Amino acid sequence: MTESGKVRKALTDWLPLWGPLGPQELKPAQFWSQGTSRASQRARSLDLSCPDAGLREEAWQDRKKRLTPPELEPTQHVLTRAFILSPQPILYSYFRSSCSWRVRIALALKGIDYETVPINLIKDGGQQFSKDFQALNPMKQVPALKIDGITIHQSLAIIEYLEETRPTPRLLPQDPKKRASVRMISDLIAGGIQPLQNLSVLKQVEEEFQLTWAQNAIISGFNALEQILQSTAGTYCVGDEVTMADLCLVPQVANAERFKVDCTPYPTISSINKRLLVLEAFQVTHPCRQPDTPTELRA
Amino acid sequence: MTESGKVRKALTDWLPLWGPLGPQELKPAQFWSQGTSRASQRARSLDLSCPDAGLREEAWQDRKKRLTPPELEPTQHVLTRAFILSPQPILYSYFRSSCSWRVRIALALKGIDYETVPINLIKDGGQQFSKDFQALNPMKQVPALKIDGITIHQSLAIIEYLEETRPTPRLLPQDPKKRASVRMISDLIAGGIQPLQNLSVLKQVEEEFQLTWAQNAIISGFNALEQILQSTAGTYCVGDEVTMADLCLVPQVANAERFKVDCTPYPTISSINKRLLVLEAFQVTHPCRQPDTPTELRA
Repeated sequence: MTESGKVRKALTDWLPLWGPLGPQELKPAQFWSQGTSRASQRARSLDLSCPDAGLREEAWQDRKKRLTPPELEPTQHVLTRAFILSPQPILYSYFRSSCSWRVRIALALKGIDYETVPINLIKDGGQQFSKDFQALNPMKQVPALKIDGITIHQSLAIIEYLEETRPTPRLLPQDPKKRASVRMISDLIAGGIQPLQNLSVLKQVEEEFQLTWAQNAIISGFNALEQILQSTAGTYCVGDEVTMADLCLVPQVANAERFKVDCTPYPTISSINKRLLVLEAFQVTHPCRQPDTPTELRA
Repeated sequence: MTESGKVRKALTDWLPLWGPLGPQELKPAQFWSQGTSRASQRARSLDLSCPDAGLREEAWQDRKKRLTPPELEPTQHVLTRAFILSPQPILYSYFRSSCSWRVRIALALKGIDYETVPINLIKDGGQQFSKDFQALNPMKQVPALKIDGITIHQSLAIIEYLEETRPTPRLLPQDPKKRASVRMISDLIAGGIQPLQNLSVLKQVEEEFQLTWAQNAIISGFNALEQILQSTAGTYCVGDEVTMADLCLVPQVANAERFKVDCTPYPTISSINKRLLVLEAFQVTHPCRQPDTPTELRA
């Protein structure tokens, strides 16, 4: 990649909220000055209105120390500073929601700081039914992510957006065929299993049949998933890198355990799940460690 | 883009089935010779074994006339020829399956010829449960697409793969925020509505409650969808171009009609649906015009 290509990439990777930079081939120096002026302008305006500017400045100083590619350093510093000084994304989440957990893992892996606004799906008859939340997500479901001036719901749409605007580290492989496998597994879980054992669906089933209903949905999905993973998996669901499919797998296995599904018939699912659970991004986002986790469920 | 970059792009866009071309910067002439030799080798071998070689040759001559960028023409001709002469993708489909319909529209819009293998979800207790089909898709669902040497299931994963390997015409906008809207709407339908009114789920509900169950799933989803579309829609679901979201909308509205859902509370959904239904790609792929459509349902 050329020098100006690298700087352009850094700019577009880091600051999609500034909009496109135009198709013309600017020299690195021009990019630098464009980036610097935009970033400091933004940073200045935010500094004035931001109550915890001191803390954000501290976070920036800390991240500055950990920045790499030397040829990009000055640009990245400016961008990172603006990035940190920007208003943080807001994740509307429920500690136990497996769809929220998927997004929390993506945010953690990509190192995106965010604020959590807990939406309690049970309390007060379900806070997702409040007028305020419905205006945010008419589907009355978590998660929803406020980011870059828009609100996105549907966990996979959120993850794909993060992937396109913050591509490092990647959650989709480069090879289109492997990307297809990742999306196939993700859709199988997000469209073929989870919706059927969702709280709102279970409520429509007579109470004595709810557990069996949820178990049937998971077992039927896991039977297929186990077979698929046998041909796609390496260390993780597709090959040896963590992908969007893994972000779906771990929360779904947690649901399976909650619904007392015997996972011994699924050795591939179980061993991938075990390998993923030790990773930091899966640990810090675990339902037992969220701001809204009740004390008795904390670990 | 440089000359060799353009040729490389044409090669990789058109012929992913040949695998990556290697990272080295070859000159256009080298690409040309590499492409030509690979293509004619492939074309030759296929010509010999293909029963309708004459017809395919005719299709190639026809498409050749409509090819654009002059500087790419020779390469594209070779590639298009090989493309047309290649074995066709196979779509495992059921005429009435809304998920199959989504993929049929994508294939039609992108001008991809394919063979249909009908999987009757009702006959013989459901042909999707056959051993042969289960080996192809362990989820025992249509659609499944055999293409480029792999088999993909899950309709949205298939459409994303087609988009990445056959990018013209695009089914996802260029702007990441609009792409997020498209995926959000697609996931809402494919994960939040359709799975709940799916045949396999309805079978688990007592017969007298099946219709209400399906209606509830659709009404609750459409209430949200109508509100979302009011802010994203232009002529179609997101802006003025047909996107993946539209490929999900039309088959879902057909399901709504089949389950006798009153669509008057959804003027935005209804008018977009109406505008889409007149497009050729939506007409030729309609459930009433499939190879497996029973005579009494044909139109």
